[in-house]
Amino acid sequence: MSHSVDQHCINTIRVLAADVVEKAKSGHPGAPMGCAPMAHLLWSRFMKYSPANPKWFGRDRFVLSNGHACALQYVMLHLSGYDVTMDDLKSFRQLDSKTPGHPENFITPGIEVSTGPLGQGLSNAVGLAMAERFFAAKFNTAECPDLVDNYTYVICGDGCLQEGITSEASSLAGHLALGKLIVLYDDNHITIDGPTDITFTENVLARYESYGWHTLVVEDGNNDFESIGKAVEEAKKVTNKPSLIKIRTYIGFGSTKQNSEKVHGAPLGKDEIVNVKKHFGFPEDVSFHVPEEVSNHYKELKITGASLESEWNAKFAKYAEANPQKAAELTRLIKGELPEGWENALPRYSPSDAAKATRQLSEICINKLAQVLPEFLGGSADLAGSNLTDIKGDKDFCKEHYDGRIIRFGVREHAMAAICNGLQAYGGLIPFCATFLNFVGYCAGAVRLSALSHHQVIYVMTHDSIGLGEDGPTHQPIETVPYLRSMPRMYTFRPADGNEVTASYIKAISSRDRPSTLCLTRQPLPNLVGSTVEKALKGAYVLHEGSEKPDATLISTGSEVSLCEEVAKALPNLKIRIISAPCLELFEEQTKEYQESLFVPGSPVISVEAASTFGWHKYAHAPIGIDRFGASAPIKDVYKKLGLTADVIAAKVQAAVNFYNGNAPNLAAHPF
Amino acid sequence: MSHSVDQHCINTIRVLAADVVEKAKSGHPGAPMGCAPMAHLLWSRFMKYSPANPKWFGRDRFVLSNGHACALQYVMLHLSGYDVTMDDLKSFRQLDSKTPGHPENFITPGIEVSTGPLGQGLSNAVGLAMAERFFAAKFNTAECPDLVDNYTYVICGDGCLQEGITSEASSLAGHLALGKLIVLYDDNHITIDGPTDITFTENVLARYESYGWHTLVVEDGNNDFESIGKAVEEAKKVTNKPSLIKIRTYIGFGSTKQNSEKVHGAPLGKDEIVNVKKHFGFPEDVSFHVPEEVSNHYKELKITGASLESEWNAKFAKYAEANPQKAAELTRLIKGELPEGWENALPRYSPSDAAKATRQLSEICINKLAQVLPEFLGGSADLAGSNLTDIKGDKDFCKEHYDGRIIRFGVREHAMAAICNGLQAYGGLIPFCATFLNFVGYCAGAVRLSALSHHQVIYVMTHDSIGLGEDGPTHQPIETVPYLRSMPRMYTFRPADGNEVTASYIKAISSRDRPSTLCLTRQPLPNLVGSTVEKALKGAYVLHEGSEKPDATLISTGSEVSLCEEVAKALPNLKIRIISAPCLELFEEQTKEYQESLFVPGSPVISVEAASTFGWHKYAHAPIGIDRFGASAPIKDVYKKLGLTADVIAAKVQAAVNFYNGNAPNLAAHPF
Ligand SMILES: [Ca+2]
Ligand SMILES: [Ca+2]
Repeated sequence: MSHSVDQHCINTIRVLAADVVEKAKSGHPGAPMGCAPMAHLLWSRFMKYSPANPKWFGRDRFVLSNGHACALQYVMLHLSGYDVTMDDLKSFRQLDSKTPGHPENFITPGIEVSTGPLGQGLSNAVGLAMAERFFAAKFNTAECPDLVDNYTYVICGDGCLQEGITSEASSLAGHLALGKLIVLYDDNHITIDGPTDITFTENVLARYESYGWHTLVVEDGNNDFESIGKAVEEAKKVTNKPSLIKIRTYIGFGSTKQNSEKVHGAPLGKDEIVNVKKHFGFPEDVSFHVPEEVSNHYKELKITGASLESEWNAKFAKYAEANPQKAAELTRLIKGELPEGWENALPRYSPSDAAKATRQLSEICINKLAQVLPEFLGGSADLAGSNLTDIKGDKDFCKEHYDGRIIRFGVREHAMAAICNGLQAYGGLIPFCATFLNFVGYCAGAVRLSALSHHQVIYVMTHDSIGLGEDGPTHQPIETVPYLRSMPRMYTFRPADGNEVTASYIKAISSRDRPSTLCLTRQPLPNLVGSTVEKALKGAYVLHEGSEKPDATLISTGSEVSLCEEVAKALPNLKIRIISAPCLELFEEQTKEYQESLFVPGSPVISVEAASTFGWHKYAHAPIGIDRFGASAPIKDVYKKLGLTADVIAAKVQAAVNFYNGNAPNLAAHPF
Repeated sequence: MSHSVDQHCINTIRVLAADVVEKAKSGHPGAPMGCAPMAHLLWSRFMKYSPANPKWFGRDRFVLSNGHACALQYVMLHLSGYDVTMDDLKSFRQLDSKTPGHPENFITPGIEVSTGPLGQGLSNAVGLAMAERFFAAKFNTAECPDLVDNYTYVICGDGCLQEGITSEASSLAGHLALGKLIVLYDDNHITIDGPTDITFTENVLARYESYGWHTLVVEDGNNDFESIGKAVEEAKKVTNKPSLIKIRTYIGFGSTKQNSEKVHGAPLGKDEIVNVKKHFGFPEDVSFHVPEEVSNHYKELKITGASLESEWNAKFAKYAEANPQKAAELTRLIKGELPEGWENALPRYSPSDAAKATRQLSEICINKLAQVLPEFLGGSADLAGSNLTDIKGDKDFCKEHYDGRIIRFGVREHAMAAICNGLQAYGGLIPFCATFLNFVGYCAGAVRLSALSHHQVIYVMTHDSIGLGEDGPTHQPIETVPYLRSMPRMYTFRPADGNEVTASYIKAISSRDRPSTLCLTRQPLPNLVGSTVEKALKGAYVLHEGSEKPDATLISTGSEVSLCEEVAKALPNLKIRIISAPCLELFEEQTKEYQESLFVPGSPVISVEAASTFGWHKYAHAPIGIDRFGASAPIKDVYKKLGLTADVIAAKVQAAVNFYNGNAPNLAAHPF
């Protein structure tokens, strides 16, 4: 009987997913139909979740890494009683619906992370599983060894397994022995372009074993769902290794076109929908049909979920009695509140303080923050000694010390960023990660998802310009700062001194629903006369007024602000205003009055930044920057070669003053 | 005797590399000292090369994937008689030297590809090895089966092997059975942050075996160089699999600090240099010393190289007699010349031609070009059916058909771009590759190197905006077009119709030393009245003059140009000029007169593009675009949601006209 209910549920999921895609006239029916058995088993036999409270901290985490199969996930959320209604299913891929074309964690209850770009989901899941280990190590006690105790389940396809990001994340997951990470690999032998063997003939299981994973095979994932159940049970028992279960399925199972790429990325069509319904014994002319037996079965699961949550709450109450401080801290973390006065931990500077590289100033902030924010953790992609990201006195996060806050990501930039998205999505943590700024190009796929998915991840990106010197153009970013600035919801900080670094961290930590990138120098910078944390928090501010009616205004960021001071000195006959602009996105958020107050109509604005000038024309009449690749040489020689010296810039400023003759157009005035 | 000469050479390489780094006061001495034995063996016993002609087509290709070890490569080039002098070695990492901080193929003779960003080199090497197979399959004959017959050798460290790009490329190399690719893995157990086992404990050889590689181990790569030689011989014999030889070395071998991260990224220091020289029995107070025995040994190798080239030339002459047409074609390819009149193969359009998506128009161009350019080959990262990149009637590039021109890269975007860099670096080929535009974020690390390293790679990037509709914000690029525009040496095309697509391909194909990205629509676009290929080749041009004194000027790209036509119709009382700007970088190359001729002083310029407005203020007083992430819905609904409709834009144009009142400032006038 239980068998036939399960089969009935599975067939319902298949037909319903096909209907969802058909109604939208857009989407991917094949993978949901193939993955229905594994999804049903996870939802009905294994996963802890509470549909009435999708954010229940004790829940298992589920990630659909092949996000194009999201009709499946929406159907599961609907059936199991999340706030995803039948009408929501009928609005699949429609404007402002709760069921967008790929899963979006900030739209749909029950979605942990946004997936679709392949490989991200599995890599996020590594972060989710790391977060579980961190909380468990930190909060579980001998008396309550399972307060934090959840699994992370993933469904993925072969697309995810071909992506390099997945290789990086999986290698790290094996190294970290993440035994509660269980991946169900939908092995359907089909990719968009045809059979996988046109390009993908590696031995996936052998590869995962080489990473230190436990692997399992289910031969018939279409019909033999009990074997899927047994495999997941086996996987749960192996607690010192992540598990990969390869499950052979047919894409579009139940369709006459099953097992071919034709059912991958387009609706089945009216006739084929009828065939599918016939095949599964469903009424041919009824759409979005959920038989009563199926809906009743899932209703029971909702009740089970609610009691699981109640039990956990009772356990937590008991834990709180025995461990009031720990319980209070965990409660704070779950709520996402920051402790009172945390920002006072960060230093302030005056001009007499020693010149330091902003990466060194960042190191100070990281270490101060780590003292007051137990939720602050992270590390570097094998450049900790250059990025200066180690939390001193803390431990490496590793299988012996899951409460360590220094994460050694290895030379795995893309996975690093995606893992931080996962760490953040778990709840309660503020992850940071680091590499050279230029290597944003190695992790941009995941950095973008930090921004899109509202993940607070702090990117500590050092060696932020030609100022890194000898390593040369392969390592010198030119286009990276414009790229980050053009990315919605990303704060791009390029601080010029100690106070600006502190301000950058204050804003990055207090912005709970978006990422920040700190672009930091390798080379030392002086502490500026006129900088304060409060001014820097405006995103741009007048560092030196020069005059109420300046002859020219220089706007600059990071290492070039002090260069602008030299330029002003080189032009004693001109009244020069200097604006420091550590974060243009933040400046855009200020009032129009404040924004306009920085600039004086008629005075030409010249921007100076050791990066592409692209984007500066919004603020400057005449941008100075580097519109070519850099060069390998000691720092001074590179700056000179590329025309970023006080005398060359001074000549250009004089040219601009002459050219505009006090009549530079007002750039701050816009028609809309 | 031969043994002791080899040892003498190896020790010389070690000491010389240490001196090179020491003199520069910057660089990485450890890996060169550890890799000296394998480098010496490759250069002296295995590799075919002709120092007097670094571009000799018949040469073996060598890639130093751990590019930070380039002191080693420069020393090898110097010793073996390339145009890299002792003075060049002494100018290591200095401005405008021939020996920059990482290898740059466009600077130093004998460097095949720029390396340093980890993983790129090995992935380039997969492309180099694929190119060899392609030429061999296409040109070798039964009588001359070895006209094209070279190996591709790589030295890499564990950093490269941790990168996802390397996993992608290696999986594909195994699938393609690239038996003449031989990778020497410098297994020194050290990364920048310390011992590799802090983060990297996978079984590398088992992983490579899972990819279908042949693997070998050398236990003592410091001293037992004969075993390295035997391993390379073994690797050469296995012709149906790429080979990975794991060679255990000590980083910084010969230094008292050997085998620790302390010798990774900084000069050894004066005292330690003395220790090293003592250890190897070199005079302590002499720097840049090459013993006569060593220099003589390498001189002989130079002579051998010259005769190898002569022999090849003789073979080619004989081949040319028997196969005059093939020989002529190969000669043309090696010279990098395009066949007469190739561009006539591309279609021209008139407004009565059917509306087509620019990806469809691109498909036509790809297929026309493939007919006239045998060197044109490429494919997609598992989206051929969406990117429309298949060369119809051609074969898949695979182990059965290495002369196939359809490359199935798999879901491996980053490796795809790096492999294309390698295909191009081999010489003679024009590779293209494809994915959705948004997934530039997955391959940016390699795309940047196409531009930096002067590789002509054509990126066919479809689904270029919110116009892709239902797939939603995870797939809709916003920041990608600005990113590409801010990247030096990249042409970013966003064509608006058939003629502009043809123009984009003409420019992309004829630009032999830089990459191009074509941003192409999913949705159909009408053929515009006023577009021509010739005008489009200016990068931007007046599509509709409107008036000599327009009230407003709209500048737009791609899918929004026809939208601008609707805007003009919605404003019958205004005289509207429309500028189509398929390639802003190309427009920047035009004369100042031409550039200024498009714009009329006083007339406000409004840009319209379905992407971030970032960067448009250079040309436009008031940019209209999308400064947020997109949305999942049918295309019309998304455009409406984001304010890109004729009526909304018309209202903004009217506002701009009112605001500026004929006095919009002249943006084309610049002080410098
Ligand atoms: Ca698949
Ligand atoms: Ca190493």
